[in-house]
Amino acid sequence: MTPIPFASRMNNVETSAIREIFKVLGRPGIISLAGGFPDSALFDVEGIREAAQLALTKNPGAVLQYGATEGWDALREQLALYMAGKGASVKASQLITTTGSQQALDLIGKTMISPGDKVIVEAPTFLATIQCFRLYGADLIGAPIDADGVKVDELEKLIVAHRPKLIYLIPTFGNPSGAMLSLERRKRVLELAAQHQVLVVEDDPYGELYFNEPPPPSLLALSDSVPGSRDWLAHCGSLSKVMSPGLRVGWLIAHPDLLGKANMCKQFSDAHTSNLSQATAAEYLQMNRMAAALARVRPAYAERAAALCSNLKKVLGDGISFSAPRGGMFVWARLTAPGADAREFAKQAIERGVAFIPGSPFFATAPDHATLRFSFATSDIAKIEEGVARLKS
Amino acid sequence: MTPIPFASRMNNVETSAIREIFKVLGRPGIISLAGGFPDSALFDVEGIREAAQLALTKNPGAVLQYGATEGWDALREQLALYMAGKGASVKASQLITTTGSQQALDLIGKTMISPGDKVIVEAPTFLATIQCFRLYGADLIGAPIDADGVKVDELEKLIVAHRPKLIYLIPTFGNPSGAMLSLERRKRVLELAAQHQVLVVEDDPYGELYFNEPPPPSLLALSDSVPGSRDWLAHCGSLSKVMSPGLRVGWLIAHPDLLGKANMCKQFSDAHTSNLSQATAAEYLQMNRMAAALARVRPAYAERAAALCSNLKKVLGDGISFSAPRGGMFVWARLTAPGADAREFAKQAIERGVAFIPGSPFFATAPDHATLRFSFATSDIAKIEEGVARLKS
Repeated sequence: MTPIPFASRMNNVETSAIREIFKVLGRPGIISLAGGFPDSALFDVEGIREAAQLALTKNPGAVLQYGATEGWDALREQLALYMAGKGASVKASQLITTTGSQQALDLIGKTMISPGDKVIVEAPTFLATIQCFRLYGADLIGAPIDADGVKVDELEKLIVAHRPKLIYLIPTFGNPSGAMLSLERRKRVLELAAQHQVLVVEDDPYGELYFNEPPPPSLLALSDSVPGSRDWLAHCGSLSKVMSPGLRVGWLIAHPDLLGKANMCKQFSDAHTSNLSQATAAEYLQMNRMAAALARVRPAYAERAAALCSNLKKVLGDGISFSAPRGGMFVWARLTAPGADAREFAKQAIERGVAFIPGSPFFATAPDHATLRFSFATSDIAKIEEGVARLKS
Repeated sequence: MTPIPFASRMNNVETSAIREIFKVLGRPGIISLAGGFPDSALFDVEGIREAAQLALTKNPGAVLQYGATEGWDALREQLALYMAGKGASVKASQLITTTGSQQALDLIGKTMISPGDKVIVEAPTFLATIQCFRLYGADLIGAPIDADGVKVDELEKLIVAHRPKLIYLIPTFGNPSGAMLSLERRKRVLELAAQHQVLVVEDDPYGELYFNEPPPPSLLALSDSVPGSRDWLAHCGSLSKVMSPGLRVGWLIAHPDLLGKANMCKQFSDAHTSNLSQATAAEYLQMNRMAAALARVRPAYAERAAALCSNLKKVLGDGISFSAPRGGMFVWARLTAPGADAREFAKQAIERGVAFIPGSPFFATAPDHATLRFSFATSDIAKIEEGVARLKS
């Protein structure tokens, strides 16, 4: 058999470098600080089960039938209310539901990126965004960040130098960075979007997972106060980290022209998102159980984050540097020894029974091999202590 | 505001020509013979509700958590059994689940089609496939068909002349054609795939909806008897027409190399299909209610198809020509008057309170404007009689 003649875009990506690590997570006795999953023990199973039952009782014929590509109307209404609760004025007609926010990213890539187009992402950023945009031929450029998010002066220089098609940011508790873009920088990003007429994509799956105090308002919420910025802002939302990832419910908010094109692409991508998932999510949001569920998740994650940080300091001391996150699911760290390589460290760690993710795959360009990502979301305090203890050489 | 600089691929498609017709279907009193939906009154609501409840009771933590991109294991097992019941030997590991079979088509487009690649489709074919493949830059070529499906001698000439990347067929009760590829032609298609080492994509959402006798085995089922053909065959399956479209559960079977690439693309398209939908479908299939549900659907659709055909003959006589379908949801017809234009006829029909779809948008090239598509799936006999009566000028 001659090889299958795949599309040329398949040369732009390779199987994820971190897949190899995920393969070993199933080994008996391995403590995983590697995953990107929320803790399923904290899911509101009872509430979601009740919501699913309501969805299939009230109007089963419609739930089980084809639906509108733009989404289940009751869910769009609930999501508009949910966004309003977070300070963003959005009408139901100004959003489309997506099959997880991953699909929102895919639709943005499909709608916006021609092969060779420049796209600015944070360095580091979400691995699946790198791969998703590269499949559409994006030429990615990394913008430097610190614990307060993307450095806006550097960002402006990159915008001027590269005239990118879009800028992709996870402003709040980024994956993998854990960083939180400061209020001042948020305003500056919006000004840059308006001034340079360049699309900014705000991916916001983690914003609700704050520990002590809420983060600054989202770029979307702030855009009303920065003239012209709303036209150049797309916002990707998700129920995955606050309700359930298994339902695959996300949403996209954007300028009507962009939203219309994305919706057309969605029609030919999967016709529409599962009505059963959408109607279940709509019923769940209407039950007003989300606040109580989040009130259980936030302190649990905060406690785990604190345990991870204090144990890392205790066990590795000056051998590792990091900023304690103020929310989200990740601690982003850097080995301080000259020439240290987190890929090597990760291999040794697995032999000692603990897994994390080396940081280099999260860089679209110029990887920093000394970096690494820990997740604290799914491990209890005892596991975190034992896992970090195993890092000691 | 300057216009948003969309990707160049967006110039390849336009908003569906048939959307305008769908807009008027909500008008009071309109009888629709236009849709492509199954009849929701025939859904096994009770069985699906029970299945969803089981899914959320047995293992809610896993259902609500992230899942594997390739699909929910229990569903993959059930789908392998389901395919075995239709004569196709498939292991669970040889298929991935997709967010409706529309996503299987999208993944094939993404994986296989570079801009400018030639792709052969039936003339006419499924509108969303035309648009989906064009978004990836396909140069579509229409292959002529009759009531026995694609004309294989013509198909071979087109393969030789154009060296296409792939050939897309709906061999069984095609949309919009209603045609059923004969057994002899099926074997010939498989021989052509093996001989010319060209990928054939079999889209099979309607195969279970036969009226009197089952159709010939699918290309997939037959491929074991045509040496080398299985390597060059991809099969798209769907639960949409036999269980529920609202769940968005389809699947893709293909050579491991293609399946692996498609799965990688799926990872960056929507991470995975709704676990709630997948686990519900798995439970439903395991309950063995599908056969009974299909035993209710088949005679209902057969009766409606017969009523549509006899009334069309009675009302329009020699003014229309068509072949009575042997399954599926559609009657494909042609106005016989010289210069007749079904688009004009459709406008007049809507004024008289009945809607169908003019056929030209279903042609990737060289539209036949005298053609039109009727759906009989969602209208009872009285509605069909009244609807067709309104076609009389």
